[in-house]
Amino acid sequence: MTQRPLLPAMFLLMGLALAGCQQATQDTSAAESAQAPIAIVIHGGAGTVTRELMTPEKEATIRAALTAALEAGYARLASGESSLEAITAAIHILEDTPEFNAGRGAVLNFDGMIEHDASIMDGATGQAGAIAGVSVENGGLRHPIDAARAVMMHSPHVMLSGAGAKTFAESQGLEFMAADWFFTDDVYQRWQDAQNAQTSNAESQDTRWYSTVGAVALDKQGNLAAGTSTGGMTNKRWGRIGDSPIIGAGTYANNDSCAVSATGHGEYFIRHVVAYDICARMAYQGKRLTDAADEVINQILLEAGGAGGVIAMDPRGNIAMPFNTPGMYRGFIDTNGQITIAIYGDE
Amino acid sequence: MTQRPLLPAMFLLMGLALAGCQQATQDTSAAESAQAPIAIVIHGGAGTVTRELMTPEKEATIRAALTAALEAGYARLASGESSLEAITAAIHILEDTPEFNAGRGAVLNFDGMIEHDASIMDGATGQAGAIAGVSVENGGLRHPIDAARAVMMHSPHVMLSGAGAKTFAESQGLEFMAADWFFTDDVYQRWQDAQNAQTSNAESQDTRWYSTVGAVALDKQGNLAAGTSTGGMTNKRWGRIGDSPIIGAGTYANNDSCAVSATGHGEYFIRHVVAYDICARMAYQGKRLTDAADEVINQILLEAGGAGGVIAMDPRGNIAMPFNTPGMYRGFIDTNGQITIAIYGDE
Repeated sequence: MTQRPLLPAMFLLMGLALAGCQQATQDTSAAESAQAPIAIVIHGGAGTVTRELMTPEKEATIRAALTAALEAGYARLASGESSLEAITAAIHILEDTPEFNAGRGAVLNFDGMIEHDASIMDGATGQAGAIAGVSVENGGLRHPIDAARAVMMHSPHVMLSGAGAKTFAESQGLEFMAADWFFTDDVYQRWQDAQNAQTSNAESQDTRWYSTVGAVALDKQGNLAAGTSTGGMTNKRWGRIGDSPIIGAGTYANNDSCAVSATGHGEYFIRHVVAYDICARMAYQGKRLTDAADEVINQILLEAGGAGGVIAMDPRGNIAMPFNTPGMYRGFIDTNGQITIAIYGDE
Repeated sequence: MTQRPLLPAMFLLMGLALAGCQQATQDTSAAESAQAPIAIVIHGGAGTVTRELMTPEKEATIRAALTAALEAGYARLASGESSLEAITAAIHILEDTPEFNAGRGAVLNFDGMIEHDASIMDGATGQAGAIAGVSVENGGLRHPIDAARAVMMHSPHVMLSGAGAKTFAESQGLEFMAADWFFTDDVYQRWQDAQNAQTSNAESQDTRWYSTVGAVALDKQGNLAAGTSTGGMTNKRWGRIGDSPIIGAGTYANNDSCAVSATGHGEYFIRHVVAYDICARMAYQGKRLTDAADEVINQILLEAGGAGGVIAMDPRGNIAMPFNTPGMYRGFIDTNGQITIAIYGDE
């Protein structure tokens, strides 16, 4: 059993008391969580999502899926399971939801095929796993995040790619679905738009939308974990690998600094080592999570022209969700057990 | 024309004067180079290389190849060409030398095939390119580093993989060689040893040798660049991707902090974001290159059990080459024009 000092809990209670009456209903859970805070944050991609481009039906579906994913992950945390279990449970729901670019409904590459990327990192051990470019041809991984986790747990490697990664996933007994299951009308339409835009040299809407999914969580043992899953960039070509399966770029977790999952124009996130850089600014400059994450997304990336955002959490369960795009599908359940879901930039 | 302040040059001369007579012969070149220092550092892999395991013939070949690579790169720098040109010229020679695990003579994967990884980064622009898992079946890239550079220069992406990366490289008119050209008896013997060791559960010598090649340089314009090229890990399987093609892990360059090329047990280098972490410690903690590089290799990685080393350079042309293995093939030409070649840990 881990004995934690009472002093921080006392200060937290004093802080809540000073914060006034609106906090009163949360005092009990805050007092409990101060002993062992738990929290989860997720994203379903960042980009040019605005109210004008959204239908009420689509928005309702997305908010419901984000809520379900958060609740699934939080339930694991509440029952004492690990942050790895929590983010996996949340990402499963996002992967199954065709509105997000991951698992089912992932975007099509140049050849009209779906290729999955995913990665996961355990902040307690520094272990990590990733898969890149795993095609759904002749059957695909229902949950690419499971394959990333299997790489971490059951292979001597961190990153597997292509047909080899698929062979490994098959050897692990993971769930596969027929190719048809992954393709949706919406995804096909976006792919056609992208191909037409390429022909006409116009910018398709889809080139400004990066709907990777991801989750970050803190469990009762004080362990952080982060995971990311995606179909990559619509119309991607030549076996392109983005930031999502790259540890340090799209995903990073370290109990001593922070955990991050990114979504955005992957090439910029790779070159700027975005996920790790946020944690490095905390570890080496003593910056707070919100400041470190905001600097990287709204200064460094913005100046470089790199569109996107991150979700991030520190070892105390503080959450940051900066993005430099008009919107980001996002949500969290904080250390007070409070759920928040948002889509647009003004929420 | 860039006007540089005279003060640093004066201090450098004072420092050299104070350093005593043994520096006298270098004063002139140091005074010249203080105006626009140039330098190059290369590696040919790190691991359990000891005098007992080495033959005089092999050692002579390796030292000659390291010398030729350094001189080829330095000649480019001396004539005012870019650091990208210099590292490319150096890596070409290392890739062509079968004693190193890159280009010709790269190690065989589990299926007895050669797959190349390479990456390059331009410290002036932050642009980067990489290829991963490009097979030599039906013909292979003579110089994988050229493909990484073509990705950087002529694609919208940073990282391409597998057959798609090869298709892209073909479209760029890069040099291809027949598959036979890449296979050497030595490589085949090491592969058989590794396969036998796997069967017998023994540790083959090759599992403790990581002979990736790489180069880092500073040009007269003050621009850093880094590049890395490898065949990966002997007997690698499932489309394994190591650190070499991953920006931030195996390769990183930034004019404001440092440039790094790594060699070692790639999985550790990925999880610890080694190349970027060295530069982050300089940028965020104000550490000197040698201290930052030494901390990451001889503290962080050593404690984690991650074998390997790096070559690194800062914007003034200072060089670090820490490794935590018995040896590392390495060499440099410093800002005084002085060449140094070394193999063993006690050199």
